[in-house]
Amino acid sequence: MEDAHVYEDQEFGHVIGPGRRIALLVVDFVNGFLDPALFGGGNISEAAARTGPVLQAARRAGAPVAFTRIVYAGNGADCGVWCEKAPRLRELTDDNPASHVIDALRPAPGELVLRKTQASGFFATPLAGWLTGQHVDTVLVTGCTTSGCVRATVVDAMSHNYRPLVVRDCVGDRALGPHEANLFDMEQKYADLVTAETAISLL
Amino acid sequence: MEDAHVYEDQEFGHVIGPGRRIALLVVDFVNGFLDPALFGGGNISEAAARTGPVLQAARRAGAPVAFTRIVYAGNGADCGVWCEKAPRLRELTDDNPASHVIDALRPAPGELVLRKTQASGFFATPLAGWLTGQHVDTVLVTGCTTSGCVRATVVDAMSHNYRPLVVRDCVGDRALGPHEANLFDMEQKYADLVTAETAISLL
Amino acid sequence: MEDAHVYEDQEFGHVIGPGRRIALLVVDFVNGFLDPALFGGGNISEAAARTGPVLQAARRAGAPVAFTRIVYAGNGADCGVWCEKAPRLRELTDDNPASHVIDALRPAPGELVLRKTQASGFFATPLAGWLTGQHVDTVLVTGCTTSGCVRATVVDAMSHNYRPLVVRDCVGDRALGPHEANLFDMEQKYADLVTAETAISLL
Amino acid sequence: MEDAHVYEDQEFGHVIGPGRRIALLVVDFVNGFLDPALFGGGNISEAAARTGPVLQAARRAGAPVAFTRIVYAGNGADCGVWCEKAPRLRELTDDNPASHVIDALRPAPGELVLRKTQASGFFATPLAGWLTGQHVDTVLVTGCTTSGCVRATVVDAMSHNYRPLVVRDCVGDRALGPHEANLFDMEQKYADLVTAETAISLL
Repeated sequence: MEDAHVYEDQEFGHVIGPGRRIALLVVDFVNGFLDPALFGGGNISEAAARTGPVLQAARRAGAPVAFTRIVYAGNGADCGVWCEKAPRLRELTDDNPASHVIDALRPAPGELVLRKTQASGFFATPLAGWLTGQHVDTVLVTGCTTSGCVRATVVDAMSHNYRPLVVRDCVGDRALGPHEANLFDMEQKYADLVTAETAISLL
Repeated sequence: MEDAHVYEDQEFGHVIGPGRRIALLVVDFVNGFLDPALFGGGNISEAAARTGPVLQAARRAGAPVAFTRIVYAGNGADCGVWCEKAPRLRELTDDNPASHVIDALRPAPGELVLRKTQASGFFATPLAGWLTGQHVDTVLVTGCTTSGCVRATVVDAMSHNYRPLVVRDCVGDRALGPHEANLFDMEQKYADLVTAETAISLL
Repeated sequence: MEDAHVYEDQEFGHVIGPGRRIALLVVDFVNGFLDPALFGGGNISEAAARTGPVLQAARRAGAPVAFTRIVYAGNGADCGVWCEKAPRLRELTDDNPASHVIDALRPAPGELVLRKTQASGFFATPLAGWLTGQHVDTVLVTGCTTSGCVRATVVDAMSHNYRPLVVRDCVGDRALGPHEANLFDMEQKYADLVTAETAISLL
Repeated sequence: MEDAHVYEDQEFGHVIGPGRRIALLVVDFVNGFLDPALFGGGNISEAAARTGPVLQAARRAGAPVAFTRIVYAGNGADCGVWCEKAPRLRELTDDNPASHVIDALRPAPGELVLRKTQASGFFATPLAGWLTGQHVDTVLVTGCTTSGCVRATVVDAMSHNYRPLVVRDCVGDRALGPHEANLFDMEQKYADLVTAETAISLL
């Protein structure tokens, strides 16, 4: 991208690298985001499939693993402005399978599953405190969508002063333009991009 | 953009509209972001120039106005991972003019100027509490960069359940690709886009 | 209390007064905190009984109402240091009736019920955003315990810049010394104290 | 205190103990809180004097050290409801010596000094992110007042899932009743109490 020139001149895009201890975040790989009739499409299914081996590697390594789900109360009491912007979010109630993590990545006993009502996995959830308790300083981020909840989670991970590593082939989006544009932004400003292969070797 | 199709099918991009009371946020229009030799370039100068009339309108209307600045301690004690990703951020110390709001938009007595160390104007600042005290439910967002601190502030504004309206000709970026891509993301998922003219009429 | 003298000299304890719109918070009136064999005792039952009429008044007035519950995952994944300090907190899982709001104050359809893992009803929950969406600037606080989750919620309400009014006969604690000491602290520094009668008249 | 009985029966007050790495927090030991004519009095001066050796020990050990100060803008723009409850807080502007850390505990180059506008050192400050960057899981808390900013900081430290250790002879308050009552609450629910001697040996 021609835009990379100004970023390089202004010294963006330095490699952060991993720190001492890594957690794996699996963002919103739930049925509703794998379903093109609800919030899915694009390269999300492929990203989810490639996340399986990363998740297995994290488990083998004993790395902390956390999943996020968007969940709203059935009575709509906790729906806000975001549900005005994208009204079908309201369908993601606790007992709707659309809000459940997909079977292929089903959380194991002891793994953390966080409910959230906003894009970022950190916003109004206990994620940061849990990472503190796990002595984590680095987060490997997988999930969907790249331009939505992944991006928001990565920006917040950086803001909370964690080292964000985005597994570029394990994040997906319903449309490829925003997917690529957000990978660019994240690499320049908020995260390193790594492959699933590299992620597995780091764990 | 061809990607708009799937967003429409999935019912993203609804218009939120303004609520009862609007505040104006002026994000990081500081000397260092107007200077192409530091963090400037692209359409940032034009965006700053177009923000002047919006700021005047807010003042005439008695709307609350807040400015943000990135400021780090001279001793580097509050620099973190973000300063590893973009090392020149460290230059934005309190006594470096690069961290000061540009003269053309100089804060008036009584206006709030927030120091921040991360991208979002909400992160680790009193912004949300101040908006509560002002009875605000809607934020008009101007500033730079579209793909950086503006986007992060808008996502957090939505997460805090404010109605974010991005003034599209009053936000700028060092590169036009990310500028456009982030306007697209924000309009689909986190904000309405309005012109400066509309912003002035809303105030 | 003799200590009131220095507070007066230093000008603490001013009356804040209510603002424009009030929400009612019902903090942790769950079965486990009404049960002296788990976390109950002292004057908690009386406080819960006196909260009924305040809740009815809020409903009649159309005031927003939110309840909080402490809830931990059955697998213990979200237990942290607090569960080391007070290990029986771990019993408050979603399907344990001890974590459910007491029948006498059962949430009505449309009322918000927040899960939390820490003392404050604001911490890592969507409470502040929900209050923003309700145009609230004032919170009437009831619940238990005065020295625990009520105090923590009140301090956070002040920190988020809401006007906290503690309904002094609708908050209770397992022990009266801490109950009184925390009412004193809150009145001097963080909240106004009001009676249930006054609370009802304000609604 | 007779109330200790019910706390013991309900299994509060377990010892948490330190974790792997300790930071020292020095809360609001600023001139205005050492001055009985502003916010001082009681045992605050003695607590500050006893904090000197703990601070020296932390520096010798290379432990991270952070100070907090309450600071409001000279124009009052960031004063909120708290400044209505205690109006003299408004005097704590950046250029008023009352807001500066006392000479006896003057921050050394490289140590973090945080500005805050609320009671907790964590609220709307980068403290949690800084602790993450320092790989800290345990905070030794000193400062004043025990019933105010120390208590609020300790509750938030616990909420963020740090191990709070309050140095009981290095925290002080303008009045001894609230001092003792808050030490009791913290020990039962949010922190371990340690002596300065123990704190020094832990560092």
